[in-house]
Amino acid sequence: MDVLRTISELRAWRRAARGKVALVPTMGYFHEGHLCLMRTARRAADVVLVSSFVNPIQFGPTEDLARYPRDLERDRALASDAGVDALFVPSAEEMYGQSHETFVYWPTMGNLLCGRTRPDHFRGVGTVVAKLFNLAFPHVATFGRKDGQQVLLLERMVRELNFDVEIVVCPTVREPDGLALSSRNALLSAADRIQALGIYAGLDAARAAILGGERRSAAIRNEMAQLMAKSPGLGVEYCEVVSRESLRAVDIIDHCSMIAVAGRVGTTRLLDNLWTMGADGDIRIEL
Amino acid sequence: MDVLRTISELRAWRRAARGKVALVPTMGYFHEGHLCLMRTARRAADVVLVSSFVNPIQFGPTEDLARYPRDLERDRALASDAGVDALFVPSAEEMYGQSHETFVYWPTMGNLLCGRTRPDHFRGVGTVVAKLFNLAFPHVATFGRKDGQQVLLLERMVRELNFDVEIVVCPTVREPDGLALSSRNALLSAADRIQALGIYAGLDAARAAILGGERRSAAIRNEMAQLMAKSPGLGVEYCEVVSRESLRAVDIIDHCSMIAVAGRVGTTRLLDNLWTMGADGDIRIEL
Repeated sequence: MDVLRTISELRAWRRAARGKVALVPTMGYFHEGHLCLMRTARRAADVVLVSSFVNPIQFGPTEDLARYPRDLERDRALASDAGVDALFVPSAEEMYGQSHETFVYWPTMGNLLCGRTRPDHFRGVGTVVAKLFNLAFPHVATFGRKDGQQVLLLERMVRELNFDVEIVVCPTVREPDGLALSSRNALLSAADRIQALGIYAGLDAARAAILGGERRSAAIRNEMAQLMAKSPGLGVEYCEVVSRESLRAVDIIDHCSMIAVAGRVGTTRLLDNLWTMGADGDIRIEL
Repeated sequence: MDVLRTISELRAWRRAARGKVALVPTMGYFHEGHLCLMRTARRAADVVLVSSFVNPIQFGPTEDLARYPRDLERDRALASDAGVDALFVPSAEEMYGQSHETFVYWPTMGNLLCGRTRPDHFRGVGTVVAKLFNLAFPHVATFGRKDGQQVLLLERMVRELNFDVEIVVCPTVREPDGLALSSRNALLSAADRIQALGIYAGLDAARAAILGGERRSAAIRNEMAQLMAKSPGLGVEYCEVVSRESLRAVDIIDHCSMIAVAGRVGTTRLLDNLWTMGADGDIRIEL
């Protein structure tokens, strides 16, 4: 596996790559969710490039950029075992130089859900992914459904800025007890870890309600609130039933809804969500 | 010359194009400035694509989108005579569909100079050029120096979003009396046309002052104001001496400055500028 540290190394690698190229953009500290993205990329393409970059411009000034977990040696071994062909690990200086002024953003949808408390987060995500697309010219890029708003905004970016990239969304990978995998789980104490399960408990209750025929958002959120209240250490930032098209709240769920939850346990912020799929009359749940 | 109206026609044309591709993004109603961009593109590449699209998202709600001049048949003949291989003339619906949420912007530099009175203008420009770059994958793109802030922001976009495109800046083409060519000149009455010359008179005075050794912005702007005051029908929106790197006002000009003027004659808004080039001790002027 090649380890690429500079933009010119990446461009040279790309020029030499033959066949279909898949990109897996990550912030490193790989877990099974990332490995699942890599294996999906492996099946979809001839050549797999993984980027591992803790992107400073998607963190706010008071956020956890400094304590975001990092372990390049471990990541290198895991990516290599997953059959990755090249790992791009640039420095912040390499990606942004001394100043950076050009951003991709979503002036409306980037300020909903997580955007309410993280005002510049999604423009940081959009900007780094646009850069990676322009550097790596992937045919396919894989993202995890766990970061639901992110993947929906990036699908819009591809469509609306006409990037010639197919986005493949991979299911959320969970611990046996349901906790969605996240690099930030490494920051949870044993006690925090128990409280964090409240998010999954809420989404699981939503699933049961929907499968039982409930379609009213207010009733579903009410069930969820009761479940999540059993985890007093969980501070729910938002729990919303939205359209996956607009990210706006909907009163009645249909086959294109997302129930998105963000919460804080101690100082660690966690996300999870549920998507409704299928046809109107026959709603399936992806959790 | 091929005339392409849809994104899929453009993509198919691009897949079939062989050799180096140059893109000339325009809003149509071609004048000698556009033809100069096309001829430069012709020399720089094997295949020349011109886009002609009056981009609605770069106009504010009270601006001149509706009265912006258009003449596709004339443009078609002029482009064909200039040796253009393909003309891309999409509809607004084709470019933006029913809704558009993803934009490229410059949160600081896009709000300076023209951005002060046209708050969403540059994000409209950045977004449409990013789309055209992603659709046409040009090796080279040509832009006119007359739209100074635009070309400086697009150079930043290419650098900071890592587009693999070389931007070539072409000199401002002028009428014999100095007026910078612009499609909007067609909107000027004969009386307006005389008043509009005040902008060039100001910039010409600035050139004389600089070549005479003056380096102080305040003194240069003072000269310019005296000249421009002789055109009472010219409403000067701004007249600024800025760094081409930051677009911020500078007190002393050097070899990387821009003197940028925007003014209104009647209801028509006009731009012009002067760039300083060369080495510190030996400043050249591009006007």
